[in-house]
Amino acid sequence: MTDYWCPSAWLPDGLVSGVRVRVENGVFTEVSAGSEPGDATRLPGVVFPGFANAHSHAFHRGLRGRTHGDGGTFWTWRTRMYDLAGRLDPDNYLLLARAVYAEMALAGITCVGEFHYVHHAPDGTRYRDPNAMGHALAQAAREAGIRLTLLDTCYLAGGIGQEISEEQRRFSDGDVHVWAERVARLAPTPDLRIGAAIHSVRAVPRAALATVAAFDGPIHVHLSEQPAENDACLTAYGRTPTQLLADAGALGPRTTAVHATHLTSHDIALLGESHTGACLCPTTEADLADGIGPARELADAGSPISLGSDQHAVVDMLLEARALEHGERLRTGQRGRFSPAELVGAMTAHASLGWPEAGRIAVGAPADLVAVRLDSPRTAGCTPEQVLLAATATDIDTVVVGGREVVRAGVHILGDVGRLLGAAMAVVEAAR
Amino acid sequence: MTDYWCPSAWLPDGLVSGVRVRVENGVFTEVSAGSEPGDATRLPGVVFPGFANAHSHAFHRGLRGRTHGDGGTFWTWRTRMYDLAGRLDPDNYLLLARAVYAEMALAGITCVGEFHYVHHAPDGTRYRDPNAMGHALAQAAREAGIRLTLLDTCYLAGGIGQEISEEQRRFSDGDVHVWAERVARLAPTPDLRIGAAIHSVRAVPRAALATVAAFDGPIHVHLSEQPAENDACLTAYGRTPTQLLADAGALGPRTTAVHATHLTSHDIALLGESHTGACLCPTTEADLADGIGPARELADAGSPISLGSDQHAVVDMLLEARALEHGERLRTGQRGRFSPAELVGAMTAHASLGWPEAGRIAVGAPADLVAVRLDSPRTAGCTPEQVLLAATATDIDTVVVGGREVVRAGVHILGDVGRLLGAAMAVVEAAR
Repeated sequence: MTDYWCPSAWLPDGLVSGVRVRVENGVFTEVSAGSEPGDATRLPGVVFPGFANAHSHAFHRGLRGRTHGDGGTFWTWRTRMYDLAGRLDPDNYLLLARAVYAEMALAGITCVGEFHYVHHAPDGTRYRDPNAMGHALAQAAREAGIRLTLLDTCYLAGGIGQEISEEQRRFSDGDVHVWAERVARLAPTPDLRIGAAIHSVRAVPRAALATVAAFDGPIHVHLSEQPAENDACLTAYGRTPTQLLADAGALGPRTTAVHATHLTSHDIALLGESHTGACLCPTTEADLADGIGPARELADAGSPISLGSDQHAVVDMLLEARALEHGERLRTGQRGRFSPAELVGAMTAHASLGWPEAGRIAVGAPADLVAVRLDSPRTAGCTPEQVLLAATATDIDTVVVGGREVVRAGVHILGDVGRLLGAAMAVVEAAR
Repeated sequence: MTDYWCPSAWLPDGLVSGVRVRVENGVFTEVSAGSEPGDATRLPGVVFPGFANAHSHAFHRGLRGRTHGDGGTFWTWRTRMYDLAGRLDPDNYLLLARAVYAEMALAGITCVGEFHYVHHAPDGTRYRDPNAMGHALAQAAREAGIRLTLLDTCYLAGGIGQEISEEQRRFSDGDVHVWAERVARLAPTPDLRIGAAIHSVRAVPRAALATVAAFDGPIHVHLSEQPAENDACLTAYGRTPTQLLADAGALGPRTTAVHATHLTSHDIALLGESHTGACLCPTTEADLADGIGPARELADAGSPISLGSDQHAVVDMLLEARALEHGERLRTGQRGRFSPAELVGAMTAHASLGWPEAGRIAVGAPADLVAVRLDSPRTAGCTPEQVLLAATATDIDTVVVGGREVVRAGVHILGDVGRLLGAAMAVVEAAR
């Protein structure tokens, strides 16, 4: 049993001063507002529920600060990304993902949704354990001390009506039923839940969509990140990617559309009416020159908003939340398109990852806490309510995951995360 | 005499490995590439020339994390800003600006352009020293260990054809010639240069523009930050703000247009052909919902690009540089609109502040150095050349200004900058 006292904390109804929480067996058993610290462990600053990183490709971290030399587009970036994907194996991916998930823990991320598609050996051969790569990711998250939703991704085509390419062979199970059989062998644990993903309407043929959509759990899909995807879909099927997914029965409250950048107003209505979630990845969408998606319109239409760091150009949910709001401001000329409370909601949205009980400081919820300092050069003078518009991940002091202190005074249980990242990337780079 | 050794450093022609520099009397006297460290002091990571923050309103730092509660626009934000401006006096402004300039030093800023318009007592009465506020800013920068260009700002009207308002009285000298006489009494020192500013075409009547433009030194002007400014100018004068400035002889290589967000293609041509600088303030332009300006077009037309943190929603030139490039990517769908070298050029552009000799690691230049770590959770794995697209100000280890180590191991000579900021803001808040 541990008691924590928070000078202020985000409870389900908003920011509250003087909050004392009791943690037993990894869950909150008491939450009392207006309390004195007594003998509880005092956390500094403002305390948030755990952050959920709803969209991650862990290995893309290896591309950070390496793809800006020669201009290009999303599509030329993808060539670099395929080269890196080609170097992974279960051993080096464990090292890399563990370091990336530790970086996430430092940034207050207590649960990550890994959109996982590097399933097989580079030539497409199955590993002895056909889920060796997924199991490496699960172990990486466990060692880094955070929860994982493994969104096992169906990836069958190189484009609409196109064969899988050489570099994509390791992504493909060849057939949607073979994919489904492999995924059925993945077993959840207390720290791990299993979800499914349609890579995109480019990579999953129309006839296979319903099979993935029948998965009993969270379903994610890359949706309309680039205009070229829309163009290809309209040409092949005479409808937008959103409409195609709707027609296949793939929209609904268990589904999350990732990016949702280039949408028609009808697409927005389809997503909102079906309560399909929208996961925005604003720092990636800026880095990859995707564009600014209609986040406010999606939220107003009925889509719950979540956030992801995706390719990990940065791993900082505070910067993601801020970039979400900044995108809105830049495209509308209005401030406060999302209130601070709504931005907190997006940073802590666990439902799309299949952990609906998490992301809340409330009795019965997993005991996840993120303490952000209010006295750093960045945050001094901010109101507790608005600090998320000024802080960065380096202002995070303490991170508790299921009652365990994974980060204390800004230091992760595994030690120097910069060194872990550097060492892991050196191993991956030396591969092949 | 001090020798430093840099594993890699940005020299005028690009990034170079193994650079040894000698500093004597505050300037570089030797710069040798491909050197061994020998007995020189080793700096970590990548070493940049000093960063220039070309646009600052120091007191706006007091608004950080305090104006996001209720939506609104640039104009409702301005009301909050006027309330804060009303609380300043020379004593509390010294405290606040010293802390803000120390925050800038931590962020690698070795020279700041302060666009200064809070000249007089709140009712417009002159202080005994009519430049008391400007002198407070000069002292603040000196104590924080950075260079200052005091851009003394002419502010005479509450809008085109409008009287100055109650809250604006302390900004105004009443008459452009009175402004000029006051500014003529400001004297440069080794750490201080004097420039002039036209607040905007809203605040300086057409007939007064040429007088400010005749100032012998750098001239800055807020230009087309908001569509409403353009509308008012077109209505009153039948021309854009840029054209109005051109007609008054206020454009040219000594002039810097700040923001330059909402421009016509003719405006861009006027600015570029005259080699008027363009100072973008991307984090402010996002925060205040201004929009994304045509930075690449301005650069291509002939305008040197500089960067400013303006209202200090953040103080982080690395984030400004990244946001400049991200804005370009978001509006064009292309990556690499500015190369890393161009972004370094913008972060270190001192010419618009009247220090053309600074911002270069070269013999004869002021010995300003900024060392950015390559082994943090944010920067591990980045190439030295591209680290500016991943690092934040917290990755800055050492900052040398004119040969003096103002920041060492991330700690400023004045100590805990978060505490200095908090204390100064408490004093300002208690005023009146």
